[in-house]
Amino acid sequence: MPHRAAIVGAGHTRFGALAEGPRALLRGAVEEAFSSIDRGVDRTAVGEVFLATLGFGGWQIGNSSTVLSEEVGVAGAPTTRVENACASGGFAIRAAVGALATGTADLVLVGGLEKMTDVTNARRRYWLGVSGDTEWERSAGLTFAGVYGLIASAYLDLHHLGREALAEVAVKNHENGSLNPNAHFQKRVERAQVLRAPRVADPLGLYDCCPVSDGAAALLLTRADLARRYTDTPVYIDGIGAGSDFLAVQERPDPTRFRATRRAADEAFRSADRSRTGISFLEVHDCFTIAELLALDDLGFTEPGAAAALTLSGATARTGRLPVNPDGGLKAKGHPIGATGVSQAYEVFRQLRRAAGARQVPGAETALTHNVGGAGATAAVTIFSAG
Amino acid sequence: MPHRAAIVGAGHTRFGALAEGPRALLRGAVEEAFSSIDRGVDRTAVGEVFLATLGFGGWQIGNSSTVLSEEVGVAGAPTTRVENACASGGFAIRAAVGALATGTADLVLVGGLEKMTDVTNARRRYWLGVSGDTEWERSAGLTFAGVYGLIASAYLDLHHLGREALAEVAVKNHENGSLNPNAHFQKRVERAQVLRAPRVADPLGLYDCCPVSDGAAALLLTRADLARRYTDTPVYIDGIGAGSDFLAVQERPDPTRFRATRRAADEAFRSADRSRTGISFLEVHDCFTIAELLALDDLGFTEPGAAAALTLSGATARTGRLPVNPDGGLKAKGHPIGATGVSQAYEVFRQLRRAAGARQVPGAETALTHNVGGAGATAAVTIFSAG
Repeated sequence: MPHRAAIVGAGHTRFGALAEGPRALLRGAVEEAFSSIDRGVDRTAVGEVFLATLGFGGWQIGNSSTVLSEEVGVAGAPTTRVENACASGGFAIRAAVGALATGTADLVLVGGLEKMTDVTNARRRYWLGVSGDTEWERSAGLTFAGVYGLIASAYLDLHHLGREALAEVAVKNHENGSLNPNAHFQKRVERAQVLRAPRVADPLGLYDCCPVSDGAAALLLTRADLARRYTDTPVYIDGIGAGSDFLAVQERPDPTRFRATRRAADEAFRSADRSRTGISFLEVHDCFTIAELLALDDLGFTEPGAAAALTLSGATARTGRLPVNPDGGLKAKGHPIGATGVSQAYEVFRQLRRAAGARQVPGAETALTHNVGGAGATAAVTIFSAG
Repeated sequence: MPHRAAIVGAGHTRFGALAEGPRALLRGAVEEAFSSIDRGVDRTAVGEVFLATLGFGGWQIGNSSTVLSEEVGVAGAPTTRVENACASGGFAIRAAVGALATGTADLVLVGGLEKMTDVTNARRRYWLGVSGDTEWERSAGLTFAGVYGLIASAYLDLHHLGREALAEVAVKNHENGSLNPNAHFQKRVERAQVLRAPRVADPLGLYDCCPVSDGAAALLLTRADLARRYTDTPVYIDGIGAGSDFLAVQERPDPTRFRATRRAADEAFRSADRSRTGISFLEVHDCFTIAELLALDDLGFTEPGAAAALTLSGATARTGRLPVNPDGGLKAKGHPIGATGVSQAYEVFRQLRRAAGARQVPGAETALTHNVGGAGATAAVTIFSAG
């Protein structure tokens, strides 16, 4: 199990409908990441910067990675914007691992950002919609909730399931979110309340959908062999994988499986030389409740359809045998698009250092993050271990 | 001089105002890249895909890298969109080198694309404008030509120069473009014609500005040690560097120097362990004629201001002692934003294999490419050698 890289610092803003703009959000997350480095660091040591963002609030559409580097005092360092819609963060972390492998940088900053409220409604809809297929889905009027609603219908039908497991994902993730001071929603919900909520895209109701959030997250990564320069408790990246699929769901043989996730997971486990039973907890991409069930199946933790029973059994609760989304997930923590993949790694950093406060997963030693772009068009999976 | 990676195939569409949309342009470039591989390749060997694009024609704004992978038959492979405005291509190549270094892929596809005509005028202006600083430049009404016009004024004033060297850049690059069947402009211009053309942004006239073009380019890269699986004449990447600066020119101490270029060049030369005298020809980012002079200065081939005299001496002509932009440069070949950095490497691939036809640089053994995002906010520099 060779370590491929190490996270030595991480920061996170509150997620929600926030007053701050892109610069302030990024600065907040990055400053926390710098100050979280136990032995401190001169920020001129940052040799490379990646920014994950879809729309930057509709403000600086091009070249926005330079706004990050100049805002946090590392102007000059190579900067790159990585955009894979909702998977931008996961792919930016992957790019950072690549940059460390080339040896051009010893310390890499990854920032993830989205500013989705306080922009015109047209822009908000635009930036959400553009991540799905334009030719066959968006042009036909299909929204993201619509696509996932169709997937959910097919999944429930194929596996002879009701809406209870979907609702249980919402209940569990709201429970976890209630313990996370950065979460957009910090309130519990009851299963009956979830089931009777207004439908958004049948069978998905209001509580099956993640919110539209502002927020930022940041990581500082270094080569595994340098990690102890910065801290005695690095969090290692042991495996990383990614995959893609046809952008339009209609082009795929089975709408109830995300092949991009399966490929990404297989590559991540292979490169980490670790088995699924060796993972303490998961952070998966639950933009809709159905997506958490798909993730469990496609990551290989359950047979197709069995994610529902696992969820209903309570095993995926924070104190269950396979905790999923202890930070509340996209569902309750919120989903500022470019920030999400980075936020998942932030949660792993806190959990594996036993610094997750009230939402601490007992005994967490390893973790997996799973970040999806579009409705399964791109996916990045990363496997971590405690230092 | 360790080789860091190798280009084993490359393709390029015509640049210009074209009928084709994004899918057809990408397919055209990528199919040529595949068929240019001497020993052929099964495209399932492609283990990673990068797409450089700013706006994808305003059509598939998010997740567009999956359109590339699905269109050319490599759906499934990890795909990433890299966006650094006009430097997207150079940074995508850099990302490909990183992916090869991690060992997750043996063969990497890089596509660069922009579709800028046949979209609404608002969109065209939008996608061009968004690459510059929004807070201080765009919101004040400053266009890209305006920014470079101000830089040109400062440069000519500081170095006591007239407009002749600017005009000579246009004359030379149009001459080169006239020999390039893919160039947007394939006609020669005379210095007097350039000097008396209508002003766009003083001192820049019509012929000082690159056109708005459609087009795509593609590369297939592999690890240096695997290159001869594919061809006896790979083109090696020996050094690569990148840098950034404040996005707004007003934040920088000297508007006549691009620090991002200087940092990128220093890193590229250091990593290639090669001196400037060892470079046969350059492909530099001449979005405006002034930008070619800045590039020669900042890449370290001339002292500040001396690029003008070098250009007027004829040394940068295709048959001069330091040929610059033998393909016509952005000025005459055209500038489809995301395609440009990839197109520069395509030109190097053709030239170093002695396959550049009428525009062949005699005796070319090494080359440097220089790709800039915004008005000097990001820059990528790559150094190549013949196999």
